[in-house]
Amino acid sequence: MKLFVIGGDSRIGYMAEELLRRGESVTGLGISAEGIPVRLLTEGVQEADAVILGVPATRDGETVFAPSYSGLLPIDGIMEAAKPGTVLLCGIPGAVLTEKCRTAGLKLIDYFSREELSLLNAVPTAEGALEIAMRELPITLWKARCLVVGFGRIGKYLAHILAALGAQVTVSARRAADFARARMLGYESVETGAITRAVRNFDVIFNTVPERVLDASVLSALSPDALVIDLASLPGGVDTEAARAFGVKTIHALSLPGKVAPVTAGKILCDTVQGILSERN
Amino acid sequence: MKLFVIGGDSRIGYMAEELLRRGESVTGLGISAEGIPVRLLTEGVQEADAVILGVPATRDGETVFAPSYSGLLPIDGIMEAAKPGTVLLCGIPGAVLTEKCRTAGLKLIDYFSREELSLLNAVPTAEGALEIAMRELPITLWKARCLVVGFGRIGKYLAHILAALGAQVTVSARRAADFARARMLGYESVETGAITRAVRNFDVIFNTVPERVLDASVLSALSPDALVIDLASLPGGVDTEAARAFGVKTIHALSLPGKVAPVTAGKILCDTVQGILSERN
Amino acid sequence: MKLFVIGGDSRIGYMAEELLRRGESVTGLGISAEGIPVRLLTEGVQEADAVILGVPATRDGETVFAPSYSGLLPIDGIMEAAKPGTVLLCGIPGAVLTEKCRTAGLKLIDYFSREELSLLNAVPTAEGALEIAMRELPITLWKARCLVVGFGRIGKYLAHILAALGAQVTVSARRAADFARARMLGYESVETGAITRAVRNFDVIFNTVPERVLDASVLSALSPDALVIDLASLPGGVDTEAARAFGVKTIHALSLPGKVAPVTAGKILCDTVQGILSERN
Amino acid sequence: MKLFVIGGDSRIGYMAEELLRRGESVTGLGISAEGIPVRLLTEGVQEADAVILGVPATRDGETVFAPSYSGLLPIDGIMEAAKPGTVLLCGIPGAVLTEKCRTAGLKLIDYFSREELSLLNAVPTAEGALEIAMRELPITLWKARCLVVGFGRIGKYLAHILAALGAQVTVSARRAADFARARMLGYESVETGAITRAVRNFDVIFNTVPERVLDASVLSALSPDALVIDLASLPGGVDTEAARAFGVKTIHALSLPGKVAPVTAGKILCDTVQGILSERN
Repeated sequence: MKLFVIGGDSRIGYMAEELLRRGESVTGLGISAEGIPVRLLTEGVQEADAVILGVPATRDGETVFAPSYSGLLPIDGIMEAAKPGTVLLCGIPGAVLTEKCRTAGLKLIDYFSREELSLLNAVPTAEGALEIAMRELPITLWKARCLVVGFGRIGKYLAHILAALGAQVTVSARRAADFARARMLGYESVETGAITRAVRNFDVIFNTVPERVLDASVLSALSPDALVIDLASLPGGVDTEAARAFGVKTIHALSLPGKVAPVTAGKILCDTVQGILSERN
Repeated sequence: MKLFVIGGDSRIGYMAEELLRRGESVTGLGISAEGIPVRLLTEGVQEADAVILGVPATRDGETVFAPSYSGLLPIDGIMEAAKPGTVLLCGIPGAVLTEKCRTAGLKLIDYFSREELSLLNAVPTAEGALEIAMRELPITLWKARCLVVGFGRIGKYLAHILAALGAQVTVSARRAADFARARMLGYESVETGAITRAVRNFDVIFNTVPERVLDASVLSALSPDALVIDLASLPGGVDTEAARAFGVKTIHALSLPGKVAPVTAGKILCDTVQGILSERN
Repeated sequence: MKLFVIGGDSRIGYMAEELLRRGESVTGLGISAEGIPVRLLTEGVQEADAVILGVPATRDGETVFAPSYSGLLPIDGIMEAAKPGTVLLCGIPGAVLTEKCRTAGLKLIDYFSREELSLLNAVPTAEGALEIAMRELPITLWKARCLVVGFGRIGKYLAHILAALGAQVTVSARRAADFARARMLGYESVETGAITRAVRNFDVIFNTVPERVLDASVLSALSPDALVIDLASLPGGVDTEAARAFGVKTIHALSLPGKVAPVTAGKILCDTVQGILSERN
Repeated sequence: MKLFVIGGDSRIGYMAEELLRRGESVTGLGISAEGIPVRLLTEGVQEADAVILGVPATRDGETVFAPSYSGLLPIDGIMEAAKPGTVLLCGIPGAVLTEKCRTAGLKLIDYFSREELSLLNAVPTAEGALEIAMRELPITLWKARCLVVGFGRIGKYLAHILAALGAQVTVSARRAADFARARMLGYESVETGAITRAVRNFDVIFNTVPERVLDASVLSALSPDALVIDLASLPGGVDTEAARAFGVKTIHALSLPGKVAPVTAGKILCDTVQGILSERN
């Protein structure tokens, strides 16, 4: 299959390089990657069996998101040039692009919604959180008292590597099954609704839940030296005004995979895209 | 709350002892446990807020399953003596008992169907599988090439402890997300449908899938020294005739928690029952 | 190099097979192995660059230890047939054989005294101890309260795999450095001299110290359900009379590598012998 | 016992605070710590059973190393004020201070030479190395190909936590026993003398050996993206001129415990000092 990669951030560039390294036929436009033959928009799309855009695919619904490209890459240009049945792979397409694909007869696939991508992205996210904790805390993670709020993909992997470093890991959860999971793996656990009582004994709190879990009452109960690392997507899980009022040091860390490990993030995208394409054959 | 435990195997006895140790008010009949005050059927049921039976609750629909009791314990006796609203906790009630509870106005709860129980039971099951492998194989699990078929609760915990012992762990799975999970945790993986090609390189195969995965073609491809440990419930996942024909050593291990670690199995039941009762208050 | 293997137990047989599999030129006599060409004593020794005996090399100083051979294999026959400079590899040679080698001009090397062998043998020893504990205890090792007495090669590896299975591991030690090592790895620790006070809280005690550490006072303080697994060489570290008097269940497990994992034990011997021979070239 | 702490860097301040927290009687001078009563030099020494200096104890042999103190703290003042038999605890005393203690009848103890301190300091050192690797590399440590040169205290702990994060760990060593240790724990290994051939496949090299191991020939064989983190004390193990010539990114990280985790480093000092003092009673 011939792949044409348009735009996207550095992860997309690394993904394109990795696709090439694994023997795929890849061309590109508006990407920051080495060794990828460049094509004009119309030409590249016409040749391609699959067109790949970044995350997000577009910000305005009209042009491809391409921060390393100086010009504009109109989405309509893709639609007009594409053969019927061309696959369009992208992350977070949005309503406008989705409608355009439907009209133009392109098969739109959102690789960013794939569970295997979310799972593997937990690795660079958790390592990024670890790096922040190591940088900010005057203690080692070994023996550090860590609370992981939320026991989903990121919470599980984060608890796993914290425990591996010798931290004392407590996870907060809501369901009996999650308490059982935590117990199996040797973590302490606390009911999410009862965090306030438990929270004073932690050196660092990692939040993974996109809800206002760390509200004023929780923040007021923290140890004065405690650090909060919020990994939840905007607006995050911390009441930032209360955090400021109580003097709680809080770091809101977003989009860690692309920031702390863009090469690995690119390889994970490559795995996912190859997986999707192999399923179609 | 007053609990009355009737019948069940040794796990139920250990569960009753653990309930008592944790401060619950417990009486019993037809159980093998120490220190539990005995009550007659009618008397015990009348006093109780919750009646607890074993796994299964009954084999014939008429009498309580009570292998350590010489007499018969009629279910209708429970129904007649119970106060309306009494909770009946049991494992695998079956249609007859379910109907009797509905008629008599008892609140039936199947603790054996709770996810937290299944999760925690993966621990004694996986340890039991480990014990069998250690006993049967002339090699260490360290560096042993292990295939875990199925990546559900038992497969995950089994892979986890095998890797912890230094085994080379491969898991077979079907979904892209499970391949990602295996990769995150450092296991090799193989498509379940493609086991035949991969299988010759393993010293031991643990099956957790209740389907005929290990059929004649897979079994014929095994190394002559390989051991198969089948953890799937009856009829299991191994074509036993083919196994015999090809001379493959196979062990079908059922109900491991109660066999290899009845005390732990009893404590896990106790955790589950207490969790259920606390949710009701 | 041409290797001639004489006598020894099943581990030596597996070692010979592994040497052959790795491409060495191997002949044998009085070994239980498949595919190894047999030679008469004189002939085999004359051809060989290195002669390999078992563990022990001899029990009486006159004949080779060869439990699977019906006749006698005189050591003097080896001495007479050997070319000057022939290497004699064996385990625990004893004074008589050592003197005979000196007189005959053979280079005697005791592979059993090599540190790398002792280290690697800790693996099957610890797995064997695990298997015994799993078989004997009615609880899982997960959450089991385990005391490892002695923090040498076996104690360290045993603590490592117990912790990996989710056990609560305490090690007893005497030196400040060993307490630091235990702390780094997340184990609790107790001063060996103060075991008596601590011992009541353990489900299983693994002894690795070849001294009477588990004396009457320690044994009298054990929980009635506790299990003692003694891995120390004869006479072991347990006062067996006191254990009987106090009703403490004790298992003295000796020579575990050859019993629980002879194939792995043979490979470890093979690694060691090949390491020794490569150092000589 | 009464302890008087003089000078030292922030770790010594945290150590003093921790000693106080654990119930010791502590006074201080020229330290950055909260809640420690201040004494004049003569007065504090006269009262004390043990005087504690930092690491190093002195740089010029005349005054106490006290970077947070504006004045000078003469060592002769300590010698004159000390009761005979007073214990002087410090790190790296040097010849002049050692001689002064001998003359004045003080019992000099170098806590920095204690094995338990070196062992526990491997934890913050290894975590600091991890933090640097995470910050500098565009990949995750998960699946990163890591070479750890040297398998002493730091190398062992570093390999342990790298493997725990899912890195592919190779250790370089020289002795057969160390190869066996690496093999037991699941690491690959390479002969230190043969690093050049192996080195091209690594993403990051951690050096712990205080010898010129990473010379021009090794550095020239590195992958262009590889990172070298040198943990060896001055002058380090890297030929820095060759590194510059070949464009190899090298970070020489010294004294990591005090930099990345001063609070933990202070607690480790506190453990060590308390251990020494308890041995003397």
